Amino acid sequence: MSKFVYAFGVGKADGDGSMKELLGGKGANLAEMTSIGLPVPPGFTLTTEVCTAYYDNKHAYPDSLAAEVDQALKVLEQRMDKTFGGSENPLLVSVRSGARASMPGMMDTVLNLGLNDQTVQGVIKQSNDPRFAYDSYRRFIQMYANVVKGMNGEVFAKILVQKKEEKGVELDTELEADDLQQLVKEFKASYKEHLDEDFPEDPMQQLWEAIGAVFGSWMTPRAVTYRKLHGIPSDWGTAVNVQGMVFGNMGDDCATGVAFTRDPATGENYFYGEYLVNAQGEDVVAGIRTPQPINLAKHKEGDLPSMEEVIPEGYAQLVKIREILEKHYKDMQDIEFTVEKGKLYMLQTRTGKRTAQAAIRVAVDMVAEGLITEREAVLRVEPEQLDQLLHPSLDPNAEKNVIARGLPASPGAASGQVVFTADEAEEQNRLKKKVILVRIETSPEDIHGMNAAQGILTARGGMTSHAAVVARGMGKCCVSGCGEIKIDYEKQQIKTKSGEIVKRGDYITLDGSAGEVMLGVVPKVEPEVSGNFATFMGWADKFRRLKVRTNADTPHDSKIARDFGAEGIGLCRTEHMFFEGDRIQAVREMILAENVEGRKLALDKILPMQKGDFIGLFREMKGLPVTIRLLDPPLHEFLPQNDDDISELANVVGIRFSEVKEHVANLHEFNPMLGHRGCRLGITYPEVYDMQVRAIMEAACELVKNEGFKIIPEIMIPLISHVNELKILRANAVRVAEEVCADYGIKIDYLIGTMIELPRAALTADAIATEAEFFSFGTNDLTQTTYGLSRDDAGHFLPEYIERGVLNKDPFIALDQRGVGELVKIGFERGRSTRPGLKVGICGEHGGEPSSVIFCHKLGLDYVSCSPYRVPIARLAAAHAALTDE
Amino acid sequence: MSKFVYAFGVGKADGDGSMKELLGGKGANLAEMTSIGLPVPPGFTLTTEVCTAYYDNKHAYPDSLAAEVDQALKVLEQRMDKTFGGSENPLLVSVRSGARASMPGMMDTVLNLGLNDQTVQGVIKQSNDPRFAYDSYRRFIQMYANVVKGMNGEVFAKILVQKKEEKGVELDTELEADDLQQLVKEFKASYKEHLDEDFPEDPMQQLWEAIGAVFGSWMTPRAVTYRKLHGIPSDWGTAVNVQGMVFGNMGDDCATGVAFTRDPATGENYFYGEYLVNAQGEDVVAGIRTPQPINLAKHKEGDLPSMEEVIPEGYAQLVKIREILEKHYKDMQDIEFTVEKGKLYMLQTRTGKRTAQAAIRVAVDMVAEGLITEREAVLRVEPEQLDQLLHPSLDPNAEKNVIARGLPASPGAASGQVVFTADEAEEQNRLKKKVILVRIETSPEDIHGMNAAQGILTARGGMTSHAAVVARGMGKCCVSGCGEIKIDYEKQQIKTKSGEIVKRGDYITLDGSAGEVMLGVVPKVEPEVSGNFATFMGWADKFRRLKVRTNADTPHDSKIARDFGAEGIGLCRTEHMFFEGDRIQAVREMILAENVEGRKLALDKILPMQKGDFIGLFREMKGLPVTIRLLDPPLHEFLPQNDDDISELANVVGIRFSEVKEHVANLHEFNPMLGHRGCRLGITYPEVYDMQVRAIMEAACELVKNEGFKIIPEIMIPLISHVNELKILRANAVRVAEEVCADYGIKIDYLIGTMIELPRAALTADAIATEAEFFSFGTNDLTQTTYGLSRDDAGHFLPEYIERGVLNKDPFIALDQRGVGELVKIGFERGRSTRPGLKVGICGEHGGEPSSVIFCHKLGLDYVSCSPYRVPIARLAAAHAALTDE
Repeated sequence: MSKFVYAFGVGKADGDGSMKELLGGKGANLAEMTSIGLPVPPGFTLTTEVCTAYYDNKHAYPDSLAAEVDQALKVLEQRMDKTFGGSENPLLVSVRSGARASMPGMMDTVLNLGLNDQTVQGVIKQSNDPRFAYDSYRRFIQMYANVVKGMNGEVFAKILVQKKEEKGVELDTELEADDLQQLVKEFKASYKEHLDEDFPEDPMQQLWEAIGAVFGSWMTPRAVTYRKLHGIPSDWGTAVNVQGMVFGNMGDDCATGVAFTRDPATGENYFYGEYLVNAQGEDVVAGIRTPQPINLAKHKEGDLPSMEEVIPEGYAQLVKIREILEKHYKDMQDIEFTVEKGKLYMLQTRTGKRTAQAAIRVAVDMVAEGLITEREAVLRVEPEQLDQLLHPSLDPNAEKNVIARGLPASPGAASGQVVFTADEAEEQNRLKKKVILVRIETSPEDIHGMNAAQGILTARGGMTSHAAVVARGMGKCCVSGCGEIKIDYEKQQIKTKSGEIVKRGDYITLDGSAGEVMLGVVPKVEPEVSGNFATFMGWADKFRRLKVRTNADTPHDSKIARDFGAEGIGLCRTEHMFFEGDRIQAVREMILAENVEGRKLALDKILPMQKGDFIGLFREMKGLPVTIRLLDPPLHEFLPQNDDDISELANVVGIRFSEVKEHVANLHEFNPMLGHRGCRLGITYPEVYDMQVRAIMEAACELVKNEGFKIIPEIMIPLISHVNELKILRANAVRVAEEVCADYGIKIDYLIGTMIELPRAALTADAIATEAEFFSFGTNDLTQTTYGLSRDDAGHFLPEYIERGVLNKDPFIALDQRGVGELVKIGFERGRSTRPGLKVGICGEHGGEPSSVIFCHKLGLDYVSCSPYRVPIARLAAAHAALTDE
Repeated sequence: MSKFVYAFGVGKADGDGSMKELLGGKGANLAEMTSIGLPVPPGFTLTTEVCTAYYDNKHAYPDSLAAEVDQALKVLEQRMDKTFGGSENPLLVSVRSGARASMPGMMDTVLNLGLNDQTVQGVIKQSNDPRFAYDSYRRFIQMYANVVKGMNGEVFAKILVQKKEEKGVELDTELEADDLQQLVKEFKASYKEHLDEDFPEDPMQQLWEAIGAVFGSWMTPRAVTYRKLHGIPSDWGTAVNVQGMVFGNMGDDCATGVAFTRDPATGENYFYGEYLVNAQGEDVVAGIRTPQPINLAKHKEGDLPSMEEVIPEGYAQLVKIREILEKHYKDMQDIEFTVEKGKLYMLQTRTGKRTAQAAIRVAVDMVAEGLITEREAVLRVEPEQLDQLLHPSLDPNAEKNVIARGLPASPGAASGQVVFTADEAEEQNRLKKKVILVRIETSPEDIHGMNAAQGILTARGGMTSHAAVVARGMGKCCVSGCGEIKIDYEKQQIKTKSGEIVKRGDYITLDGSAGEVMLGVVPKVEPEVSGNFATFMGWADKFRRLKVRTNADTPHDSKIARDFGAEGIGLCRTEHMFFEGDRIQAVREMILAENVEGRKLALDKILPMQKGDFIGLFREMKGLPVTIRLLDPPLHEFLPQNDDDISELANVVGIRFSEVKEHVANLHEFNPMLGHRGCRLGITYPEVYDMQVRAIMEAACELVKNEGFKIIPEIMIPLISHVNELKILRANAVRVAEEVCADYGIKIDYLIGTMIELPRAALTADAIATEAEFFSFGTNDLTQTTYGLSRDDAGHFLPEYIERGVLNKDPFIALDQRGVGELVKIGFERGRSTRPGLKVGICGEHGGEPSSVIFCHKLGLDYVSCSPYRVPIARLAAAHAALTDE
């Protein structure tokens, strides 16, 4: 027969910390603390199996439960030396739910259970404080009616207000014992009126009804929905914890406090905490009274008296407990304690939340202290947390006036004056003014302005819109897709949802990590990449298998990425090079050319520039692989769209306006994402790819010849949907590459591979791999096509989807493992099936997102590639993946 | 040891018609004809295994081959009673390649092999015709040099021209025997000069070199490429056929002709053919002399004398052979024959090509004649052929001046005067003029003009562009995506690729089945759907398992489809109803509404109209299932785009121009195909779907109540990518449906299901099926997303892809079974895995394409749905699928 009730107290516990499935998180934790000798108020836990049996058996408890509870209650009475329902020294208990993981929608807590008209007298005797006793009693009725019986709390609030008016006082605390005793009566009357039954005077009835309410709350619609969304099986059930009450508010020999075993902001190894004399737990948090420091460690002039001074014995006990906890849990702990009549009780210990900086310092220190291994240290820091360290961020203590929310497109924080054009951003930057560039959306023509601005705010576009991608590449803060604001270029102003107007020149602050827009200048803190950071990342690198490359198009970005630990370039987007300065002109000439010859003339102008770009990249990435993607976007992206710009272009190239305009119109596409781009351009205009391959190979040959280092360029052909495309383009590329090698008289090893970014490419990867020496999963486009979801248009509904839980996560941020991930798996396995040595990586934005990196590791990919500023995050995620995969 | 040479002749053959793999198509066919007693000139076949061995063994023949050929040649000499290389009665042979399937790039034919300076004397003796002998000889040298030795034929043509000039004659036939004898010498001299070797006088050398040339041609680049593109393994090899020559041009007791055992145009059961006295096979086809009818069956005044009259014995023999052939092959045959000195020889028989009309008549007649079964009859007609019967088509004999080619978007043929606006099309139509509407692209606002026009021509848009879909729905001819032409609305003219100008009012003709645009009016033939058609389709229906539904949005289309045999509606696109007349106004009000209440007010206006639509559909489809897809396109499709129209709309709805314009701008999408559409609208604007569900259910309730027939509406939710979307929308739909049923006091069975049209939906179909009672694969969108290919933009490169063989077929026409098909399979299997009874069909354009229909049958789907005019094609394809799947 199963055991349904597990007791704990006075150093003994039936369970322990490993029994979360049976006792729930809270129950297991209380048992663990008890058994390592901490002074935990005794109690007992009804197991999750009771809950399961209850639902399996039409809301009936197992036969043996009542007897087990009676027995546990007896033990509890002995351990507390109090009597449940007793009128001399009554035992009061708390009743709490405790599932394996904390779960909204579940019944939370009932305190002071056991109070009735008799036992309240006992409390008065013990505490010598009738006010305390009746206040506890009326609170109990209120909590019981609301939590156990589902009665609206407003009813009691009204009675309380009436009572205060009647007495002519303003604060609850001004009510006296008699008033509160009167309130108890009135509360009970209201209870009966609303629930059509008397308030239960029998403590056993109170207890069983509270237990029943916990089990009942397991099946509330909110709890059911939450479990469905989070994939928690309903047969897990919840446990119920019944624990003896202790009071920090029974007099001046009582106190309550919270503490961290180390400083959670910096990680420094000293005991950090606050407490209050004669107070309840809520008082410390609520901020009505100013909490006092627990010790003198960081004493400052004017500090209130510390616990170390006021309750030296209690504090000494607490210091011992701190040591025990750190040795036991081997991590920084966040604790709650109460001193009742001079005796210390531990109510809670859990892993303490901390800043990224603290996380790294604690991890590195604990290795030095011999508490944990390097391997454990690496697992202690969440990869995503590192983001805090790699960009300036808002001072967490600063006040902020958030006027709009958009997508957290590129992390960091920035303040500046609002400007609406790239040209003005550049102009103001020259005048040493700090500006935020605000655009409905950005285009390649805005790049100089984005570069000049402190940060970028756009009304349209998703996490991978032009603004977002470019900003991340620049390491510049960006909030994109901020559909709440209306941008009026004519009036040079922004209108927020609430009607607020922000004009050109007004200061705003962006938080690109949170997607927030604030009015004015909000103070910031600079990133601190301390020596501990380097030590820590070194450990991470020791454990990971997955390589981490970067997406970079310029020597500047490449250098940043290499400093952050990138092991090569996984994606160089050559089209970004096409936009710069004098090149765009030649590119446009190429596009407007009537025939192949005309195109070749224009391409001849671009060739030396592209070659120069590649020389720069190869030098910066000396000794590391560099994957270069051939031209990908549709040609119309390179042409101007409005009449003025078209007219200007017509003048420059000496073609009639109407002809240029017709060309622009002819290139228009309904769905450019699915249009004439990628390898489709390579098939219809082979001379473009030929030029690019020539530039790559000439750059490589010159460096090998003149600077003598080894280069293995990886030429990547985008948007393949059918092996025949790659067959043709591979043959073209090989021909050009061999020509160049022959011209230079040098043998260069080069690889030719492809992006796998369309579902069909993944499905036919076995065929495609016969022509590809490497695959790089372009998970951005693969997500777009698999979901049928345009990144740039998703802003119209995706935020609502996430908010309502239609989708758990934005699939452009975290790889959708179920759908897109299956295609990656299929592509990977089929590719390797025909070419066992196939090199495989991913180069979508997901390459820097921890859960996606872990997925790539598990699949067995060779590398991930991400933007420079996310390289450390990917490195750490890869280490986590390797360590948890053993 | 393998046998490498198979002989045939005088009623005996080593092989038979089933041995195509070993003997090639031609060799097997010659063996078969021989063994059923037809007078075939004897010969022998070197098997495909010789070819394979030749390549496996470094271009060496199997050891035993030479002896086998010698032996076969001896038998051939006996059978022909002639001697190879003999100077009295020499045997001449033809040498031909013969792979399993005919294959371009392979060596074709060498005739008259065996001729040399000795044997030519024998031919003179036998034929008493030196001119014939030397003409044959010089032709042989020419053919041998060209086909076997790869010499340029121009060289000999020049010598021939010189000779004619020298002799002062114009025609080859005016040259005399001496001239030709002289030519033989000159040809040989030229042969030696170019090839640096003597022309081989030894017939055995001639024979082996010709055999070697056939095997060599198996590996020419053209043949290799062809095999790769068509997936023919190179180890299939080719056979070589060596056959005794017979001559139809040796005098007036000689003749040659071609015939069909029935009329290939109408299928009528009479012997149809043509012949020429004293002629070679080419002469009949080349049209230099007018061929004469073989019989008097369809005698007309002025006909030349028939073979029946001129060579009555030969004709009587031929009539017998006709009977033997039809009995043996059980199909209409296309034959070639030669009469040499009064003796009839059969050179070829093969299944005769025929029109659709003939195909059906032959099949139905042959069943009546007891020649074939109904099952065989059904398999005799290619489904795609039926298309000819269902639309008017160009007279195959008419001359046509094709000025441009586009996509065959909607079949049929039409002529009319060019107009450039929908309004003018309507205006001209009122004046009883026939017009072709020419647009760069069409939009819903053009529908009245499309309806008024005979046909539609667009410069942009694919097979499923607006123009194409609407035209197919109307059964109206359409050529879309004709990117070759430039349409100038201002000048009211079209400019073709070759610079031709077609002005407004000029007549053009469209062939929507071929995608061709012709100048002027080309004569057409009307569809003939005879009683045989009905009989034939009845048989098809007996055998098929797959149901065939139609895509129809109006009672009119539904009626056509039902007449064509549709078994329900598989896709009713409700948005088409939104565009009509007064509705578009209410729809626009709905879109412009500021909030839910405003939208509901507008929707209230639309509700009764939508309900009326559904009542019409349900009535027309009485007793059959009707699947109704809720609103799918993005809202901006319903709004005007240019300032004038926006201004007009602003006036009508009483909103400021700038506000309407802002609304239009806000709804703009970069990639509408991947944007805020389908179920995403249903999630963000639930009131729209609620209205539609209400209209469907109210229509059903009223009909059940008032007209008493049974209706099972199938409500289809589009563009699902995640089960959560369907969960929410299903719940909404059920709520509304139950409300309506309660209001009417009626219980209606209805199904709620979804389109599977995104890769992610297919991949997660197991989850989605938990919320769906049926799946309909939207293979149009699934193809777009799987390939990352926009139908509307594919015109920029897809035609080039098909032309160059990058893709074998347009994936929007024939389902891409390898890629898209795998997703359909995955979706189907996973869907059925969680809901075994799940009803599954497809409703993309592929539902009417035979290879795709067969694919759906094999997969086990329940139905396909296609446009009304393709329903019979789908029915027949489904029958084929069932019959070939047994």
